[in-house]
Amino acid sequence: MPLKKPQNGLQNGDGSHEKDSRHFGNGSQQQNMDINDHEGEQNLPSVLEVSNESPVVNGIGSSLANGSLNLHSTVKRKLDGEKDYVFDKRLRYSVRQNESNCRFRDIVVRKEDGFTHILLSSQTSDNNALTPEIMKEVRRALCNASADDSKLLLLSAVGSVFCSGLDYSYLIGRLSNDRRKESTRIAEAIRDFVKAFIQFKKPIVVAINGPALGLGASILPLCDIVWASEKAWFQTPYATIRLTPAGCSSYTFPQILGVALANEMLFCGRKLTAQEACSRGLVSQVFWPTTFSQEVMLRVKEMASCSAVVLEESKCLMRSFLKSGLEDVNEKECQMLKQLWSSSKGLDSLFSYLQDKIYEV
Amino acid sequence: MPLKKPQNGLQNGDGSHEKDSRHFGNGSQQQNMDINDHEGEQNLPSVLEVSNESPVVNGIGSSLANGSLNLHSTVKRKLDGEKDYVFDKRLRYSVRQNESNCRFRDIVVRKEDGFTHILLSSQTSDNNALTPEIMKEVRRALCNASADDSKLLLLSAVGSVFCSGLDYSYLIGRLSNDRRKESTRIAEAIRDFVKAFIQFKKPIVVAINGPALGLGASILPLCDIVWASEKAWFQTPYATIRLTPAGCSSYTFPQILGVALANEMLFCGRKLTAQEACSRGLVSQVFWPTTFSQEVMLRVKEMASCSAVVLEESKCLMRSFLKSGLEDVNEKECQMLKQLWSSSKGLDSLFSYLQDKIYEV
Amino acid sequence: MPLKKPQNGLQNGDGSHEKDSRHFGNGSQQQNMDINDHEGEQNLPSVLEVSNESPVVNGIGSSLANGSLNLHSTVKRKLDGEKDYVFDKRLRYSVRQNESNCRFRDIVVRKEDGFTHILLSSQTSDNNALTPEIMKEVRRALCNASADDSKLLLLSAVGSVFCSGLDYSYLIGRLSNDRRKESTRIAEAIRDFVKAFIQFKKPIVVAINGPALGLGASILPLCDIVWASEKAWFQTPYATIRLTPAGCSSYTFPQILGVALANEMLFCGRKLTAQEACSRGLVSQVFWPTTFSQEVMLRVKEMASCSAVVLEESKCLMRSFLKSGLEDVNEKECQMLKQLWSSSKGLDSLFSYLQDKIYEV
Repeated sequence: MPLKKPQNGLQNGDGSHEKDSRHFGNGSQQQNMDINDHEGEQNLPSVLEVSNESPVVNGIGSSLANGSLNLHSTVKRKLDGEKDYVFDKRLRYSVRQNESNCRFRDIVVRKEDGFTHILLSSQTSDNNALTPEIMKEVRRALCNASADDSKLLLLSAVGSVFCSGLDYSYLIGRLSNDRRKESTRIAEAIRDFVKAFIQFKKPIVVAINGPALGLGASILPLCDIVWASEKAWFQTPYATIRLTPAGCSSYTFPQILGVALANEMLFCGRKLTAQEACSRGLVSQVFWPTTFSQEVMLRVKEMASCSAVVLEESKCLMRSFLKSGLEDVNEKECQMLKQLWSSSKGLDSLFSYLQDKIYEV
Repeated sequence: MPLKKPQNGLQNGDGSHEKDSRHFGNGSQQQNMDINDHEGEQNLPSVLEVSNESPVVNGIGSSLANGSLNLHSTVKRKLDGEKDYVFDKRLRYSVRQNESNCRFRDIVVRKEDGFTHILLSSQTSDNNALTPEIMKEVRRALCNASADDSKLLLLSAVGSVFCSGLDYSYLIGRLSNDRRKESTRIAEAIRDFVKAFIQFKKPIVVAINGPALGLGASILPLCDIVWASEKAWFQTPYATIRLTPAGCSSYTFPQILGVALANEMLFCGRKLTAQEACSRGLVSQVFWPTTFSQEVMLRVKEMASCSAVVLEESKCLMRSFLKSGLEDVNEKECQMLKQLWSSSKGLDSLFSYLQDKIYEV
Repeated sequence: MPLKKPQNGLQNGDGSHEKDSRHFGNGSQQQNMDINDHEGEQNLPSVLEVSNESPVVNGIGSSLANGSLNLHSTVKRKLDGEKDYVFDKRLRYSVRQNESNCRFRDIVVRKEDGFTHILLSSQTSDNNALTPEIMKEVRRALCNASADDSKLLLLSAVGSVFCSGLDYSYLIGRLSNDRRKESTRIAEAIRDFVKAFIQFKKPIVVAINGPALGLGASILPLCDIVWASEKAWFQTPYATIRLTPAGCSSYTFPQILGVALANEMLFCGRKLTAQEACSRGLVSQVFWPTTFSQEVMLRVKEMASCSAVVLEESKCLMRSFLKSGLEDVNEKECQMLKQLWSSSKGLDSLFSYLQDKIYEV
């Protein structure tokens, strides 16, 4: 699902950002060593609270990019110091050491007060398209968040696109090279990525700032609350691009949208506006773009004030009877994609479609 | 979910009401002794046909309260006598004797022509909040209605609130007293109350005149048809008040509203207006408050003219494959509530929330 | 559900139509002998492309009736000849011979480019009402379409009514005659008809030009995409006419519309407009009546350009886990109808209702 509009000059790879993302989401958090550490982090000003309407950055977490918020500046430290929490410098240091071993390249992970915030912010693909490598980063971040003491997860994106689904130029490149091996590898990456969402035990809130396509839309029903900006829209044109459904959409979409609309989306590539997606149940609520970030943050913080046990047990009650079914569906969907990609006919069909699209541009 | 607005001076406990409720819903009906008796009752003027717009009473069945309709007055009897039905005074007498043994305090049960009408009209709680005792009365009335010859059940409420869910002042009082014993008792009362709805074999029509909160909203998907007044609204802020979902809402809400909206309701306490609830599938149709009672009664009578076999078998076809699943969900939900209430941590969290609310007022 | 408006003078039984329908849907297609044959047919002008706004004919495929489109005229043949496809006259001949053995009387079947088009066009009932014989024709056509090389199925209707459900005058006639034998025969015909939809492996697109009642509405969730004209409306008043649900609606309607609306439709005969049906999930999209045919054809042709494997496997992913459940529901529903029809009480109730309706007219 290649989008023509270029990612709007986001300075996501600059120094300040590198420095920022280094501090979050790593193995040491799984060892529960971050009890004091994240308390230090909880007072970071959330970038989501700043409604930054510059033309360059307009997604949740986008103000990351303007460089004015160097989160670990001396000023910040001083502010932190004024609060009454235990701050163990020794512990913090060791965490940082570990964190730097597994920092992320295509996502940003922030530990906020009571929740983990994952931002899609791909450096290696356009429009937050997903490659096996990016999906692996998300899985690792989910794994960290499931083990630490955050009560819920917020997933959003940097830039004007939430997620454009699988990266098809990557797909063509790899599959042309070694069809058999790569079809297995990519299908398994999708399977594991989707499985990580199915199995995640804490509530997942998604904030959709712009277009959500393919796998980027399919995983939404695996999340718990979906808030969308008016600018968001949703499309899963699997059949149109000669693919079968993924992300459990073959099960969840008919369940939520009804058979008739689900099939129109999956077979005919019907596009849903944010309002349509909301009135049909894919989205919880739609907010005005200018205040979207604040509205989301307000609600996420409210949720994060709830009891962790209540949040996790409520989700467990709501999901437990579905989990094994969804895992089966996920397996079948990915098995089918693998078959399509490893057959020359399926691949030809995909290639000819995608090449047409590329020539169109 | 304590509402601040006081129940508006409903004279529900006066003599005429007591006299009225005495005539309905008891064990003798289960023995099929009421065949002629209810035929005598079928010509009672339905209070639902009177649109009473006084500020004091505005729910379905609310005109009960204004005292002008003493249903068994001499005038009424005379009217009854003019109709061509068998009226066996002897039988009626014996039924009354039995009925007086198990009359209801917090609900009103009326046998109408072809259907049973249960009205929530709590004397012992505010805003039709539910206590184990009130839930037991409803269960008993459901049990009676399932055994008698009525074809369907109409559930509505007296007053301006349909049902405000569990009575939290009762909850605090009891749980502070004896956490272990009371948590089991209350959780089991909820379980049995919900189970009675799951297992009820005749169609249940609910008429929602005003706010339906917590358990009062959660049970709606266990009923068959839900008509709402424009004044109705719906809220299930379980997580907000540090509780896990009840009434099978952890299963039925995602099923009906979609995962995204269901979670917003259960986790964030999102409030649905009557129109929203209708467009999202929780409510069948919304009516104007002034004519709500008539519209409902018209339709219920129409339904009650259908064949009893067709109604029961249709419901059986629609529900049978769900029944065991719902019973499991109900068990799990109540098990979870019991755990929360019997743990000091869960209880503290609940208490501190509820006490904050009380101090706010 | 007898409609009063007569079928508007459709000349469906004239020679040209007979000649036309003779060419499609028979056993030889199942033997994969039609590979070249249908390529010859693919260039037939689709009647759906002509927006014929005459008061006489306004359904999809309605221009069939005006006689001006004799599809196998010499002119057509010449046009066909100008295209670059393989046309094996010998094969075609043998196919025609076979086809003439099983031509259809109450439906029209057309093989278009990549898809099969079935049009309800009943000669033996009013308003495309269904009799066991007509349902058998549809099953035969589905069976043919499943075996040939078409990628999907388009189902629409000739005339102003899509389908008025079971033919009740037929029902009364037969059941009065031999209750036991006929109740079994008719219930089994419904069961097999519905089963054919459940088991059909290629995507089914339905174009609803006008009212869809009873079984004609109930089967829609068994289809994949449902496009409706603004003129369409939907009603399943089973309980009202003293019947229990059919076509798996006891399962699919609550699933799609929510329990509350599904029950209002099945118990109270609530009528849904095209827009309501769309906003509640029964319909994929609604189109303006004047351009309905073109909009549908455009989309169906687009879909038919997809890979056959992708279409069938996508449908398989979406339906496989539901199939056995739906077959059970179908069995139970038809068992129940059989019981109702074979009991004198059930039959009396049905007859008295239907006779009232007839006297009303």
